[in-house]
Amino acid sequence: MVTVDLNADVGEAFGAWSMGDDASVLACVSSANVACGFHAGDPQVMDKTVALCARLRVAVGAHPGYFDLRGFGRRPLAEAPPEVEADVLYQVGALAVFAGAHGVPLVHVKPHGALYNQAARDEALARAVARGVARAGRDLVLVGLASSAVMRRAAEAEGLRFAAEAFADRRYEADGSLQSRQREGALLTDPGAVVAQALSIACEGFAIAADGSRVPIRADTLCLHGDTPGAVENARQVRASLAAAGVRIAPLSR
Amino acid sequence: MVTVDLNADVGEAFGAWSMGDDASVLACVSSANVACGFHAGDPQVMDKTVALCARLRVAVGAHPGYFDLRGFGRRPLAEAPPEVEADVLYQVGALAVFAGAHGVPLVHVKPHGALYNQAARDEALARAVARGVARAGRDLVLVGLASSAVMRRAAEAEGLRFAAEAFADRRYEADGSLQSRQREGALLTDPGAVVAQALSIACEGFAIAADGSRVPIRADTLCLHGDTPGAVENARQVRASLAAAGVRIAPLSR
Amino acid sequence: MVTVDLNADVGEAFGAWSMGDDASVLACVSSANVACGFHAGDPQVMDKTVALCARLRVAVGAHPGYFDLRGFGRRPLAEAPPEVEADVLYQVGALAVFAGAHGVPLVHVKPHGALYNQAARDEALARAVARGVARAGRDLVLVGLASSAVMRRAAEAEGLRFAAEAFADRRYEADGSLQSRQREGALLTDPGAVVAQALSIACEGFAIAADGSRVPIRADTLCLHGDTPGAVENARQVRASLAAAGVRIAPLSR
Amino acid sequence: MVTVDLNADVGEAFGAWSMGDDASVLACVSSANVACGFHAGDPQVMDKTVALCARLRVAVGAHPGYFDLRGFGRRPLAEAPPEVEADVLYQVGALAVFAGAHGVPLVHVKPHGALYNQAARDEALARAVARGVARAGRDLVLVGLASSAVMRRAAEAEGLRFAAEAFADRRYEADGSLQSRQREGALLTDPGAVVAQALSIACEGFAIAADGSRVPIRADTLCLHGDTPGAVENARQVRASLAAAGVRIAPLSR
Repeated sequence: MVTVDLNADVGEAFGAWSMGDDASVLACVSSANVACGFHAGDPQVMDKTVALCARLRVAVGAHPGYFDLRGFGRRPLAEAPPEVEADVLYQVGALAVFAGAHGVPLVHVKPHGALYNQAARDEALARAVARGVARAGRDLVLVGLASSAVMRRAAEAEGLRFAAEAFADRRYEADGSLQSRQREGALLTDPGAVVAQALSIACEGFAIAADGSRVPIRADTLCLHGDTPGAVENARQVRASLAAAGVRIAPLSR
Repeated sequence: MVTVDLNADVGEAFGAWSMGDDASVLACVSSANVACGFHAGDPQVMDKTVALCARLRVAVGAHPGYFDLRGFGRRPLAEAPPEVEADVLYQVGALAVFAGAHGVPLVHVKPHGALYNQAARDEALARAVARGVARAGRDLVLVGLASSAVMRRAAEAEGLRFAAEAFADRRYEADGSLQSRQREGALLTDPGAVVAQALSIACEGFAIAADGSRVPIRADTLCLHGDTPGAVENARQVRASLAAAGVRIAPLSR
Repeated sequence: MVTVDLNADVGEAFGAWSMGDDASVLACVSSANVACGFHAGDPQVMDKTVALCARLRVAVGAHPGYFDLRGFGRRPLAEAPPEVEADVLYQVGALAVFAGAHGVPLVHVKPHGALYNQAARDEALARAVARGVARAGRDLVLVGLASSAVMRRAAEAEGLRFAAEAFADRRYEADGSLQSRQREGALLTDPGAVVAQALSIACEGFAIAADGSRVPIRADTLCLHGDTPGAVENARQVRASLAAAGVRIAPLSR
Repeated sequence: MVTVDLNADVGEAFGAWSMGDDASVLACVSSANVACGFHAGDPQVMDKTVALCARLRVAVGAHPGYFDLRGFGRRPLAEAPPEVEADVLYQVGALAVFAGAHGVPLVHVKPHGALYNQAARDEALARAVARGVARAGRDLVLVGLASSAVMRRAAEAEGLRFAAEAFADRRYEADGSLQSRQREGALLTDPGAVVAQALSIACEGFAIAADGSRVPIRADTLCLHGDTPGAVENARQVRASLAAAGVRIAPLSR
């Protein structure tokens, strides 16, 4: 039986500002990546978000990013590896204590935005992320881009389980990388296309790349989005279609 | 035999900015209050500071403050109790993970600056601080102003040990409160006076108040400062004089 | 002929986070209070917001607040008067350059949130705000709570014109102060009540206080809100009703 | 008669943290680059720093950087050109109002740290910086790396005067670029070498590059540092030696 995790980024409000519809998207997923206060989220948002995850029985993970509220952690930053390591350790620790306070384990860590993308390509950065996670706990699962050998090796070098992540609503290139968001069509919005890609990755291990070729993608977890009404509806359909296809949806574990 | 803890605030650098001489003051104390990134400190500073504490065998505590780098956490802020609780929990969790990574326990939590002063007087704030600490771990010791019944009750209500703190270099009022820093002479700078007050509090349980009266102060821990060259020298003399007087200097424990 | 200014707080997005519907509320008012980056707003948001005001021929004012993104500038902070003065000067200067770049004058300054409320009562704070504004330009109009003699005197002491502000959708106390938002009914939501209060203040110079008495309010400008769909609709009706009643709506001027 | 400007970065304290010895270095220079609150500086620091410049008759310039206190604006950041333009405009406006309040003109703008270095090489970034400056005022002088044709062209395209900057205490490469700080010897610390390079650039128009060759450098302004005791002493000697050699030291002007 095929098993896959469904994950979503949540807890990205900040102070008076809200972001997305966490309750709706959490109803669709098995794992939550909770913002840790550097690119989004604040302590009270984290407290409420972890409480919601605990109530909905969604596995809690940390979603550390660059210390860049203005840029929502999406702007590449030349941060030295020791800084990245300490930043990841700090954020994972901060989120872990909320998980503990709500009586649930911290299961995984998924870097956010520019840190995720840069670490997928840069050996030193990937190692810094993995070291930060491993210093917080060797039983944590490190989530990274399925096609990133760099991230996989970094996780394994630190004794961490690596969980390969794929995207139901992003167009892939033939080499397994994500098509740049600059390119038209990089984001799948048609519900049928999103569901089809989710099914094809989860059940058959491939996606249709931008050039029409089949690109093999072995994914432990699929990322769903919830920051637009359309995204939430797509997330619901992905979950329903996977279930209908007999796929078991379950959180990551060591 | 009389036992007392000596504590100091450390790790208050931020990015390119330094603050005080941590190595020198840590050589004098048994406990360190490490800034957690809200009023001072950043993840790399925390990592290095905890490493230094571990090497010098100084007990590690968290020093959470208001999210106010500009004001160094010294400006009273009307933050709602649930925000304070989440802020404390966040910062304690962030520091705890560095302690764990360096193989040392997190022993105590001492609020910083305006949060310390406001919580000493405000029941709801004291309860919020204590709840934040207790949610991070009921074996943590909560450090507060010796004369604050409010803080003591809040700690006890959450099942935390309360450690009463006194100051060797601050002038006391007859009611056990600290004289306002606005008042001339509120800060003792004469080394002899600082040492005398430390000895009198630790060994005899009182200080001479501003009005000349004896004010009883039962202290579990004495705060030393290290942010000026004079302060470091005073800290050295306090430690030496206490040792010469047969006082045992030891960190707090549950 | 009765003339009144209608003002709204705008430009309160920050980075990836949006806030309210500026375009809709700007269509209803004659003056805009543009956030300056301390409690909300960032340079690009300011650039776009001032461009929008210029296009819609809405007078541009600065809306300085405490340096407190987390609290949206709504949390009272014990900031020393010289800091407040410099903070106001800084924010007014930052906004003024955007106004200049878009070829429109900076007309007024209205403090935001906790700074507005604290300065309405605290003489030293009100003087600090007024000095900050006056140092940026003596031809600027300082907007403050209509019933605040403190703010009026501070403005006049610095040679600034004071513009008295009233609220169409806030319940007044008999002494002309605003009812605390903690109290039920402090915020008028019924469109009829909002329009009635706007008309009564603008045309007759009074409002009906919480205790049923008539409280005299002489207002140069009425504040409208646009952060909820209901608020925008109320703003539209207030404008239409004032126009229908023959009130001339025009921005403030020296 | 040879004329050159001497400039220094000042006002880089923040809240409780100090940085360098502004009074000493300002005694050596004709122009000051004042931090604007994004990478360092805060409104009160800016107020005091501009007051000090005015008293010492040192020309005031803005020193805008990335919104990155943690990294002191030294970390390259992938900020989009429209953001950079707005950030520069904001910071220049904020500083300009302090200059105005102290009755002195704002003369020049020199980008800080990573923004300076990235804009020296990146056409789009240089244009964004120049546009931000030009929108604040076309009579402002834009200071950039002497060898950067990119910055010179960007300034000229916006109708700004470009002032070429050279460094007395940085080793040059044969192509006129600065040797990377990673390389040993990139920073000249020997006072004789610093003075010799200052004289050779100011009077003869060249420096001796790392490979021993003569690299032509035509400089309108020389940067001196004041963040270490040694740097301040070097700054004093550079000023004295230039004066002794008959060089006139004078601020930039349109």
